[in-house]
Amino acid sequence: MINVLPKVEVLMCWCGKDFDITRWVGSMPNLRVIQTFSAGVDHLPFQAIPGNIKIYSNAGAYSEPVAEHAWALILALAKGLHKPTLVAKEYLSNEITSPRSVIGSTLLVLGTGGIGREIARIGKEGFRTYNIGINRGGRPVDYFDEVHRTDELKSVIQRADIIAIALPLNRYTRGLIGAGELRLVKRGAIVVNVGRGDVIREKELYEVLKERPDIRFGTDVWWVHDGREEIPPSVPLTALPNFLGTPHIAGGAQRDIAERAIMRAVENVARYLRGEGPLNEVDRNDYL
Amino acid sequence: MINVLPKVEVLMCWCGKDFDITRWVGSMPNLRVIQTFSAGVDHLPFQAIPGNIKIYSNAGAYSEPVAEHAWALILALAKGLHKPTLVAKEYLSNEITSPRSVIGSTLLVLGTGGIGREIARIGKEGFRTYNIGINRGGRPVDYFDEVHRTDELKSVIQRADIIAIALPLNRYTRGLIGAGELRLVKRGAIVVNVGRGDVIREKELYEVLKERPDIRFGTDVWWVHDGREEIPPSVPLTALPNFLGTPHIAGGAQRDIAERAIMRAVENVARYLRGEGPLNEVDRNDYL
Repeated sequence: MINVLPKVEVLMCWCGKDFDITRWVGSMPNLRVIQTFSAGVDHLPFQAIPGNIKIYSNAGAYSEPVAEHAWALILALAKGLHKPTLVAKEYLSNEITSPRSVIGSTLLVLGTGGIGREIARIGKEGFRTYNIGINRGGRPVDYFDEVHRTDELKSVIQRADIIAIALPLNRYTRGLIGAGELRLVKRGAIVVNVGRGDVIREKELYEVLKERPDIRFGTDVWWVHDGREEIPPSVPLTALPNFLGTPHIAGGAQRDIAERAIMRAVENVARYLRGEGPLNEVDRNDYL
Repeated sequence: MINVLPKVEVLMCWCGKDFDITRWVGSMPNLRVIQTFSAGVDHLPFQAIPGNIKIYSNAGAYSEPVAEHAWALILALAKGLHKPTLVAKEYLSNEITSPRSVIGSTLLVLGTGGIGREIARIGKEGFRTYNIGINRGGRPVDYFDEVHRTDELKSVIQRADIIAIALPLNRYTRGLIGAGELRLVKRGAIVVNVGRGDVIREKELYEVLKERPDIRFGTDVWWVHDGREEIPPSVPLTALPNFLGTPHIAGGAQRDIAERAIMRAVENVARYLRGEGPLNEVDRNDYL
């Protein structure tokens, strides 16, 4: 392997804990491109990667499975399937489980990339939702009735029946949602996170869910401590009755999805090698 | 009340156990119409209702809430939310919970009335499903790519990834689905019932789910014993790991849905009183 390293121009990897880029990057003087198989790149050691190396993510590769997982969490929470009981009176009178309508509701999606757009599409076409999007510049995106800038979050979050978080984790989104935002959500709102755990402030989420049992929260993503997603977290979030969690399995869990995602990364590298504009170039300034 | 009865021309009721039609119908010589608030009429004592009295159901009044409940069961089962674990390896390697893709799958809907059609619409528009329908005559219906006759069930049931049952209970559908049909379903199929419990043979369902843990089954409707839905049933269905149940709460649980359904029944009676053709006239021969 050592003989090959000086020739390496493109590195493709999950680039997670199992393959420590910082150990190898110094032995690859000709490295020009790092292409990840993952959609998010928040786990990359940006400081250790020389500035002349381009970084391409695999954003969009998991849009469909992650968006349908988001909808599974939304519908399960809406119909009380996170705490099912077979006693109808209990089911209907309990704030934790009483069924809520989804068709025609107002859906707020934070992040309008591949996943957020697919969540909005399923809402609009399947459940006739009114869709509000949030992205950095407020730029319009298909399937959204309105799109607002991130700094307008506090005013739009109050209007939503369902809030879906599909943001990448970077310096603009880390800790974006805290008690101040969560306390503003409508009575009975459903909130799901399929982006990255650290977009929400862990302890503040726990406090608000405890004081507001009317909010139902579902997540597939968790908080990173010491470089690892901690599942379950030390904060006793998973013990709350208005909580539903899955262990980061929304994207890539099935073999066919992982294969398609890897092929998508390969095709992107092929675009680079043919001199065409590759997709998903990461702006390092978002992460430094 | 006694003075009023001889004048009654239209009777509107849920017509369930709480209001026994058989006790009152003899005192209403001018009764011409019974309009139910419920969509199904399988609970009516047809033998006791004189043949000159027309019966109108409220079919279609609950299509949206029941169809979105069906999709909540489908997605929850597809993503293993009926037995959530926070250990990713366990989640992914276990046949009971391993996530399955929904987008692009083949959906078989038994019953193409208001609810079945809405289940098909959500599938087609939201999740790009290929839709196969089953109705008595095989007549084409919107949002279905193919529709087959009930007697073709055994051949089409083998092709479906997801099977949704939205049939009324009548003499054509009672016990329609037994071990013979269930054993034919694809490995890993998801089956949900939001029609009536007795469309499936209770004990045979239990036997097949026990021998085929790859099948995931969800239901909101249950089996009637001595005139009452028995929840949970005496057969230990609800103890199976590949089972998810709700206590018949899909339609009408929320106040706004019940109000809309009652208004729909009132409008139908108004059509009758104006001499217009009312909707949803029940063919008694289906039930006798």
